[in-house]
Amino acid sequence: MKLSRLGEFGLIERVRRSTVKGRGVKLGIGDDAAWVQTTFGSCLVTADLLIEGIHFDLKWTSLYALGHKTLAVNMSDIAAMGGTPAYLLLSLGIPATFESNHVEELYRGIRSLALKSGVTLVGGDTSVAKSLLISACLMGHPGYRPVTRDGARIGDDIYVTGTLGDSALALNLLQRKSPSLKTPLARFLVSRHQFPTARLKAGSLLAREKLARAMIDVSDGLLQDLGHICKASHIGAILMEESLPLSRAYRCLSGRDGKRHALTGGEDYELLFCARKSDRRNVTRIQRLIDVPITRIGSCVHPRDGIVVLDHRGKRLAFRSTGHDHFKSI
Amino acid sequence: MKLSRLGEFGLIERVRRSTVKGRGVKLGIGDDAAWVQTTFGSCLVTADLLIEGIHFDLKWTSLYALGHKTLAVNMSDIAAMGGTPAYLLLSLGIPATFESNHVEELYRGIRSLALKSGVTLVGGDTSVAKSLLISACLMGHPGYRPVTRDGARIGDDIYVTGTLGDSALALNLLQRKSPSLKTPLARFLVSRHQFPTARLKAGSLLAREKLARAMIDVSDGLLQDLGHICKASHIGAILMEESLPLSRAYRCLSGRDGKRHALTGGEDYELLFCARKSDRRNVTRIQRLIDVPITRIGSCVHPRDGIVVLDHRGKRLAFRSTGHDHFKSI
Repeated sequence: MKLSRLGEFGLIERVRRSTVKGRGVKLGIGDDAAWVQTTFGSCLVTADLLIEGIHFDLKWTSLYALGHKTLAVNMSDIAAMGGTPAYLLLSLGIPATFESNHVEELYRGIRSLALKSGVTLVGGDTSVAKSLLISACLMGHPGYRPVTRDGARIGDDIYVTGTLGDSALALNLLQRKSPSLKTPLARFLVSRHQFPTARLKAGSLLAREKLARAMIDVSDGLLQDLGHICKASHIGAILMEESLPLSRAYRCLSGRDGKRHALTGGEDYELLFCARKSDRRNVTRIQRLIDVPITRIGSCVHPRDGIVVLDHRGKRLAFRSTGHDHFKSI
Repeated sequence: MKLSRLGEFGLIERVRRSTVKGRGVKLGIGDDAAWVQTTFGSCLVTADLLIEGIHFDLKWTSLYALGHKTLAVNMSDIAAMGGTPAYLLLSLGIPATFESNHVEELYRGIRSLALKSGVTLVGGDTSVAKSLLISACLMGHPGYRPVTRDGARIGDDIYVTGTLGDSALALNLLQRKSPSLKTPLARFLVSRHQFPTARLKAGSLLAREKLARAMIDVSDGLLQDLGHICKASHIGAILMEESLPLSRAYRCLSGRDGKRHALTGGEDYELLFCARKSDRRNVTRIQRLIDVPITRIGSCVHPRDGIVVLDHRGKRLAFRSTGHDHFKSI
């Protein structure tokens, strides 16, 4: 059905009807504001903006995947605080050429992940727009004391969950229409790019056990996001290039790019955190509980050293860019 | 300074530094998510999307006014629930041609209203975009039991705060570059369009005294927004055209448009509510406390009657459109 026939309120009514009323939702879609329960007298809240042509290209992603990813990237921010995601507000700018089933596809992607994660859509806004734009705001329960970026200390270990660079390498292969895209290895990378996993269990356990002293999710690239921790915690960092966790697909397909994507490529949505040296055993214990590798990749040093990456011979590597900056890349 | 020189994180740092840390903010701008206190174990939350060329035109508004309005329209949604606004998340898509002082101007408009209203900016997102887009998410404290749209009953009175149609008439004058724009009366209308007032005190008192049984803010036009109350409460409504509260400026400048803007024009951000007939004295009492007129404009009837507007002779008026629908106007 054409959106112009369905109308704005017809669309909202459809979304409302297909939304399961979640736990803690006192009043969901359909009033001036949503009314939701919070725990511990407080809540976590994060927002993300995704714009067609800037953050995504409908050539490389389906609307279903895009919906899924919209929620996943916001969940990743809540995971990086050690929290549990709960309520989503979704504002959409929709091109006039879209049919209602296009919009439905996007919501289907969101719903599939929301149902699995206990997240409820409670509100938002809809409008026409020249190109597709998605603005999400996700609220979560803090659970334990949220893990900020400023608690790392000199001597701490630096860890990362999962593997790095898969998403950026996938985008690179897609953009240059690499013939390798048909291989299962490349398909794995593309799925990492299109359906990132927020490390909720890891984040929550690391917060509960007070192991992560500073934590962030890797969205703009390892070096850049580590830079945020360093700045907030007033420390420097030494990374061992050899230790970076790489998937088999990444190792097979990265070619001349080497570890560049793993160091500076964005959208991995893995958790990067710092923990006391004395907690190494405890971190290993957590790893067993969450079924996702946690890799020690470096350590925190004096801030005068900045961020240094050493290769396997102990030689300092230099990087032209540390990661993504929206305005500097204009 | 060019935004490309300042960079995304330079911009965020500037915004962070110029933001006063508000009450209840445990962790504001600068981490993966904000962490805020909530009262009564719950919170209200609303979102709005403003897109250049759809919701605003930089020909008719300054960036300062736009910032102010962004917050005001979200505050109006919280007011319509009887709540108190508290925390704002602001996501901006910024054209590459913008200088950092343009963005600063927008934030200045937001800050001026935020300071007056006890609202703190706690997070958001920034990105480049082809045209300016603003996505806001506002959280508030419920205060008392939030006033929804579904509590109106047959026989209730219908009231509205302030005056209607000023904003739509102002936009109309601006769009047709009316020569009357230089007059003080037109300037009053334009200020109503550019700097709308959220009726927070009225909303909060009407909720506290349990006078408003159903409430909504007039954002899409009186008839359309009344339609939302009617649908949710399963009632119809009779409005007396003669009773519609009009400003002197509106009466002087509406000309051939008559009461059209007052009935179907959007962006008044007045509160529309239904109250028991037996509460007329109490509503008058509230009016004295808030320094804003509250006008009885009709009554709730059986749903089979739909929404009827009667002129001064008791004749039914017909309307081609009831208000704004983003997709139907494609």
